[in-house]
Amino acid sequence: MKDATQLRSGRRPGETTTRAQILEAARAAFGRESYEGATIRSIASAAGVDPALVIHFFKSKAGLFEAAMELPFVPAEVFPALIRGEAEEMGERFVRFYLQTWDVQPARERMLGLIRSAVSEEAAATTLRGYLVEEVFAPLASLLRLPSPELRAALVASQLIGLAFARYVLRVDQLVAASSEDLVALVGPAIQRYLSPDLPGAAGVKP
Amino acid sequence: MKDATQLRSGRRPGETTTRAQILEAARAAFGRESYEGATIRSIASAAGVDPALVIHFFKSKAGLFEAAMELPFVPAEVFPALIRGEAEEMGERFVRFYLQTWDVQPARERMLGLIRSAVSEEAAATTLRGYLVEEVFAPLASLLRLPSPELRAALVASQLIGLAFARYVLRVDQLVAASSEDLVALVGPAIQRYLSPDLPGAAGVKP
Repeated sequence: MKDATQLRSGRRPGETTTRAQILEAARAAFGRESYEGATIRSIASAAGVDPALVIHFFKSKAGLFEAAMELPFVPAEVFPALIRGEAEEMGERFVRFYLQTWDVQPARERMLGLIRSAVSEEAAATTLRGYLVEEVFAPLASLLRLPSPELRAALVASQLIGLAFARYVLRVDQLVAASSEDLVALVGPAIQRYLSPDLPGAAGVKP
Repeated sequence: MKDATQLRSGRRPGETTTRAQILEAARAAFGRESYEGATIRSIASAAGVDPALVIHFFKSKAGLFEAAMELPFVPAEVFPALIRGEAEEMGERFVRFYLQTWDVQPARERMLGLIRSAVSEEAAATTLRGYLVEEVFAPLASLLRLPSPELRAALVASQLIGLAFARYVLRVDQLVAASSEDLVALVGPAIQRYLSPDLPGAAGVKP
């Protein structure tokens, strides 16, 4: 019996079950271990499949994490487009893209879930940090030809995570009432500053 | 039998118990109801005391909330000093003060607890929003002689909450390694911009 998903994706019956088993093992591993510690090999073993099959389905550990968390986008794939274009509008492009991902369900619920887990469980915070550092900050840092790129990525993340917290968790009126483009204009330049060559204070922090 | 706290504070035996009962009733009310909905009258009634006694101990609902949450400071009392002084260093003063409060225990644990509750329980998010709007954003807005003061206060909060999340929850290396003064230099100007008269984009958002 094929369901609509199988027909659309052209997956064989059985693949869906295997894929689901891998995702379940991945969610368990990412909730229990650090992002670095949860290896494709250990997740494959827990799901009772060959590591090659995990790679076949999800390409990489980042792809597996993003599928397990049902994230709507792969940051590393989006960054080149955000960094290309008018240099002085880079901050605005980051905020616009970020808000677009929060504006759709189920992505918003999944990302709230990530924040919720991180704040209540040490292991989940470690996993989220590991994912951000390895799959978000590092690719961004490698594209930025600037001093202290990881520090900059972390500062960008601090503003964007706080914006989501205030708008979607606390639901502060003024931030809910503001349109995405209002927020692009308000917050974009703050991001832009963290990504500008002459960020004051950056030199003092170890890279 | 007097304990050290009673001796120091000069409280009569019995006062400590009454005070503790009020704080317990307050924590229950703030966890269950909105900040607006949890009245001094209803909390006094739940604790079996006269509302005048609650005012006697805690002065105001804000004072009661801050005592119940063991917050180390009363934001409204600190703002005048932060706003006074060199106008162009206001953002830096906000970041320095904010990090100082996070750098001491048990304040850090209490504030993490607030974020944790807000992210996992709708009622706690509503309470935290109510407290921030009434006791933090409104006093700050009334001191700022600027257009859209509540929006500015919310944007300041978004950056500061995100900084705490990245530094104390996720513990991103670069932000942990950065000294308070590094962060004052890095993040201060972002706060400064939200508090500057010519904030672009602010005009479009309803005040």
